[in-house]
Amino acid sequence: MCTRIGILGYGNLGRGVECAVQQNDDMELVAVFTRRKPDEVSILTDTAKVCNVTEMEAWKDKIDVMIICGGSATDLPTQTPECVKYFHVIDSFDTHARIPEHFEKVDAVAKETKHIGIISVGWDPGMFSLNRLYANAILPEGKDYTFWGKGVSQGHSDAIRRIEGVKNAKQYTIPVESSLEAARSGDNPELTTRQKHTRECFVVLEEGADAERVAQEIKTMPNYFADYDTTVHFISEEELQANHGGIPHGGFVLRSGVTGWEKEHKHLIEYRLKLDSNPEFTASVLVAYARAAYRLSKEGQSGCKTVFDIAPAYLSAKSAQELRAYML
Amino acid sequence: MCTRIGILGYGNLGRGVECAVQQNDDMELVAVFTRRKPDEVSILTDTAKVCNVTEMEAWKDKIDVMIICGGSATDLPTQTPECVKYFHVIDSFDTHARIPEHFEKVDAVAKETKHIGIISVGWDPGMFSLNRLYANAILPEGKDYTFWGKGVSQGHSDAIRRIEGVKNAKQYTIPVESSLEAARSGDNPELTTRQKHTRECFVVLEEGADAERVAQEIKTMPNYFADYDTTVHFISEEELQANHGGIPHGGFVLRSGVTGWEKEHKHLIEYRLKLDSNPEFTASVLVAYARAAYRLSKEGQSGCKTVFDIAPAYLSAKSAQELRAYML
Repeated sequence: MCTRIGILGYGNLGRGVECAVQQNDDMELVAVFTRRKPDEVSILTDTAKVCNVTEMEAWKDKIDVMIICGGSATDLPTQTPECVKYFHVIDSFDTHARIPEHFEKVDAVAKETKHIGIISVGWDPGMFSLNRLYANAILPEGKDYTFWGKGVSQGHSDAIRRIEGVKNAKQYTIPVESSLEAARSGDNPELTTRQKHTRECFVVLEEGADAERVAQEIKTMPNYFADYDTTVHFISEEELQANHGGIPHGGFVLRSGVTGWEKEHKHLIEYRLKLDSNPEFTASVLVAYARAAYRLSKEGQSGCKTVFDIAPAYLSAKSAQELRAYML
Repeated sequence: MCTRIGILGYGNLGRGVECAVQQNDDMELVAVFTRRKPDEVSILTDTAKVCNVTEMEAWKDKIDVMIICGGSATDLPTQTPECVKYFHVIDSFDTHARIPEHFEKVDAVAKETKHIGIISVGWDPGMFSLNRLYANAILPEGKDYTFWGKGVSQGHSDAIRRIEGVKNAKQYTIPVESSLEAARSGDNPELTTRQKHTRECFVVLEEGADAERVAQEIKTMPNYFADYDTTVHFISEEELQANHGGIPHGGFVLRSGVTGWEKEHKHLIEYRLKLDSNPEFTASVLVAYARAAYRLSKEGQSGCKTVFDIAPAYLSAKSAQELRAYML
């Protein structure tokens, strides 16, 4: 029997979840919930329904796991605790500093209603966090490095778009190859913000805007760009659409550590992602954890969990016997 | 309170476990068990005892987790099921084809005696297996690649040493850089055994041995070398000791997959290890799983487990709250 999946929110991430469900034979998309008028939202799956968010409660016996595809700033802090009243849920809450608070809120409702809620699923937080944890547990004496990119940062692109005279923009975060090599060397260098990443901006100007002033405003913007070596390219809207329409991302998690009685041996653990589509990859992780949520619930478990709390076997459609025989 | 660790078998791996225990404040090495005469074995930890294997049962209330450091061919198939009668145990059983059988044997005894036995821990099987599992669960449509090295293969070094006229030898398995790049490309190439790895041998001859015949015997040896491009260097025993005394290893696990409604986006997940000391790194993984075994036992669990069955948080000395706050 298939696990019945619902999607709350149908942007890039929601559509990514829809695609990922299609790739997993043991899952079935049942309904998509949107704040828009359902007639105005067209989805890819013929057999699934589009409903307004206000109808959600009526689906509580027809959906096993709701995958919540809202934003971390304003949607998830209310959506996840609300949704877990009716369903097992997965979210990709990525405001690192507020994870403990979000966890507590979801945990309280999930325990009361006997549901599973797995929060902060994706790749960072998510697969990158897992790799940090495994690597730290194995090599307690060492140093962690995280590099992001090459990839599109939505937040930085938005920041550029808010500058006067900017019509459109796309920002790429790029890891500095020589710093990556330094992190891999085993010498455990201290790397500054500027040494680790550069930022490359492709900007479409409004007619008559002053390119030099815009470039200056970008490069000196505090938090976003001032601490980085930033390159600004001015291009046409057509070029932006043609060459910068994708949402690639990725990065590297490294731990460099030592073992031996005199700490005489060096080791490097490196995890790398290279993603054509950030939202589709994140969605694929969400769907794997939806499988886990459903299985945990079948065992009678409830409460809030993170990727740290889920044994890897729960993510796979294969049985424990198959996994031992063919994947160990 | 510290988890009390025992080590069974004091070769390179056993000594590696001893070093790893020293790096973890929540663990304490209590005793090392050897088939040799205890007086003839000198260990590094002042506070631990050396005992003969026959005394093991007497320690059943003084040791929490026994880390079994024997070989997979003849030691572990009997040692692990025997040991789990008295202790929670960890082993690094790495004969992939016989894992299901080993699992069943350990599971039966562990359940009966209410112990935890975690088998096939290390990096392959172990961390590589975990990465295969996570990557397959996230990207169900794709292709897996495993490359080993650059590193010393003990089995291949031994095979060379058995050739007449060979005094000593060390064999390195080396991944072919262009094939690694091909695997990373997203084109999912089929790679033959010969394309993926080369083998480099450093051989010390007995006096008067025929170098050409030895090189020929190595290069044509079925299973071990015949399917690979193999290079043979003849060197002196002094050179071998000076330049090839280490036991480095490592490798790469990659999964290249697609997402999207039309499978239009490519993704690469890559996990890499670069290890100065294969046994010390393996030992460090064993010790992290010893922590997990002890915690699982405190929850009342029992039976045989593999790395697939253990939630990552159990490996870390940090609390769930700390992990969520600082590592997610």
